[in-house]
Amino acid sequence: MTTQTPALAVTQANGSFETISLDRRALRDDDIRIDIKFAGICHSDIHTVRQEWGDIEFPITPGHEIAGVVSAVGDGVTKYKVGDRVGVGCMVDSCGECENCKNDHEQFCTKPAVFTYNSLNYDGERAQGGYAQQIVVTERFACRIPDEIGLDAAAPLLCAGITTYSPLKRWGARPGTKVGIVGVGGLGHLGVKIAAAMGAQVYGISRSMAKAEDSEALGATAHLATSDERTFSDHKRSFDIILNTVSADLPMFDYMKLLKPFGVMVNVGLPNGTYELPPRAFSGNTAMAGSMIGGIAETQEMLDFCAEHGIGATIETISADQVDEAYERVVDGDVRYRFVIDTATIGASEKA
Amino acid sequence: MTTQTPALAVTQANGSFETISLDRRALRDDDIRIDIKFAGICHSDIHTVRQEWGDIEFPITPGHEIAGVVSAVGDGVTKYKVGDRVGVGCMVDSCGECENCKNDHEQFCTKPAVFTYNSLNYDGERAQGGYAQQIVVTERFACRIPDEIGLDAAAPLLCAGITTYSPLKRWGARPGTKVGIVGVGGLGHLGVKIAAAMGAQVYGISRSMAKAEDSEALGATAHLATSDERTFSDHKRSFDIILNTVSADLPMFDYMKLLKPFGVMVNVGLPNGTYELPPRAFSGNTAMAGSMIGGIAETQEMLDFCAEHGIGATIETISADQVDEAYERVVDGDVRYRFVIDTATIGASEKA
Repeated sequence: MTTQTPALAVTQANGSFETISLDRRALRDDDIRIDIKFAGICHSDIHTVRQEWGDIEFPITPGHEIAGVVSAVGDGVTKYKVGDRVGVGCMVDSCGECENCKNDHEQFCTKPAVFTYNSLNYDGERAQGGYAQQIVVTERFACRIPDEIGLDAAAPLLCAGITTYSPLKRWGARPGTKVGIVGVGGLGHLGVKIAAAMGAQVYGISRSMAKAEDSEALGATAHLATSDERTFSDHKRSFDIILNTVSADLPMFDYMKLLKPFGVMVNVGLPNGTYELPPRAFSGNTAMAGSMIGGIAETQEMLDFCAEHGIGATIETISADQVDEAYERVVDGDVRYRFVIDTATIGASEKA
Repeated sequence: MTTQTPALAVTQANGSFETISLDRRALRDDDIRIDIKFAGICHSDIHTVRQEWGDIEFPITPGHEIAGVVSAVGDGVTKYKVGDRVGVGCMVDSCGECENCKNDHEQFCTKPAVFTYNSLNYDGERAQGGYAQQIVVTERFACRIPDEIGLDAAAPLLCAGITTYSPLKRWGARPGTKVGIVGVGGLGHLGVKIAAAMGAQVYGISRSMAKAEDSEALGATAHLATSDERTFSDHKRSFDIILNTVSADLPMFDYMKLLKPFGVMVNVGLPNGTYELPPRAFSGNTAMAGSMIGGIAETQEMLDFCAEHGIGATIETISADQVDEAYERVVDGDVRYRFVIDTATIGASEKA
């Protein structure tokens, strides 16, 4: 028996958000129902609903930064019980059997993985995201949110947190390393917090010094402006890791020159252009790498790490009727640093 | 008191090799004199003397794949004694004090390192390479050649061997991994041998199947031709490591698609063009990296590894009067797989 939940949806191309009633599937044996409390707004949500990443089917309810409380469990559920605080990120299912799934890299499931929205479940039903009051998901794709993190500050960790944690961990951010975070925004502000908690010396890097104070408040040793040529001379060959969170077309070779031998440039932004690099950009045994979210086990590890280090996203909580405006502000870079929708407000005006 | 040694040199731009008498410095406390027995011909030698990598000073004696026997030691030498079998590779000195030197990455010495030829020693004397009967070098930049490896087959290990060993080790070639070696030539044939000895499943990769039989004889599971489209479909997303040893401009994105998640493309060739890659080339958490020879400790480790696994270069031994012709044949790809000069023949015709 499906259930109905109030949700925000865009019902047609170029449309605004409307309140709808969304079907959620009847609980399967391994499913949990989550009463969603907060849903973060990721720039990917905007790219998707605006069809900047290709045509989509409407109506769509985006949202893959989901935090809430378990309100019902299927008969076979063992990991969670009613009342548990949980989160759901970018994925809601994977085959569980391929090499990547077995290695806890479900994001690279060869079947492939079912993403939280704009994706089909394996039974053919369209997956719909977290701008809603409930979601039903297999317990395997929920993560426990430790009590130390507020559900509102936790929501963005499910995408922005793991997107920055995973490459910082893989490439060895730790005491004695120097890490640059390019772009101090939704992703980058968590990159600064997490890299600093890992013990690295962290530099926020952006075009201007406008965010210098913020950057340092987030845990950076200092902030560097790329509009200042001295950034590229003074810090030449000094970074172990540069994590680039912006989607603009950057002069990559200039950034690669900031890497020390064996350093790595990790891009989690997705610019439209191509990277053009001469072979000598890699002459210091440097590397350029991509990174796409993280697996479920690593997402849990990230949440536990954040709890241990007192890290949550820095957020601005909004109500359902502010989402359209929030999208404009995200595109304008006018948010410090993540919008989180209080899902209790969905459908509130209709009810009033 | 300097000593004189017969050597091959190019004395002017576009010149051929001539026999000269080369000065080698008087032994310092930490120096050893090596009676060179064999010197490998590396493609870098050719690029350098032909000024394809920039203007150089003549005369020049190239050669950085040097194998021989210690014939004299300075008063403070502790590592070697007369009669020891030793090799010298691409470097002959470094500061020993910078972070990179202290981490055993002398190739990235910030002073910088002194390269074996076309480089100035710290005292201002021009370094001259291994196409000669003797060389004097600090003991810190000599490596012990284990008895199991013939000096002729050992010589190319000092550059081609470490150039392929270092990235294969860094990026984790081992049992259970699939490694592609692009270009089965001077570097690549050692890449195949070493990756196979590390326990990886190895594929030689080149334009055609001309070297298929050789590739398998060297230890590859199979050979793949990039002229065959099926190579790119059948092996899509399957390689852990691709080591590219060719200097041609390859369609890098096509190769990146052959990498499995977390796979790495390592380029040790130096094409003239730039790499142009869309961001999605890295969407499987893949990486592209460079690799430049290796430090002295790692070079010793490589020699010990090769001895343990019965690996030497596959060589064609030539006499001094064949070097000009050998250069042409290297440029034409007409050598299986490395020319090694028998240095006893330097000046032989004059003496006869």
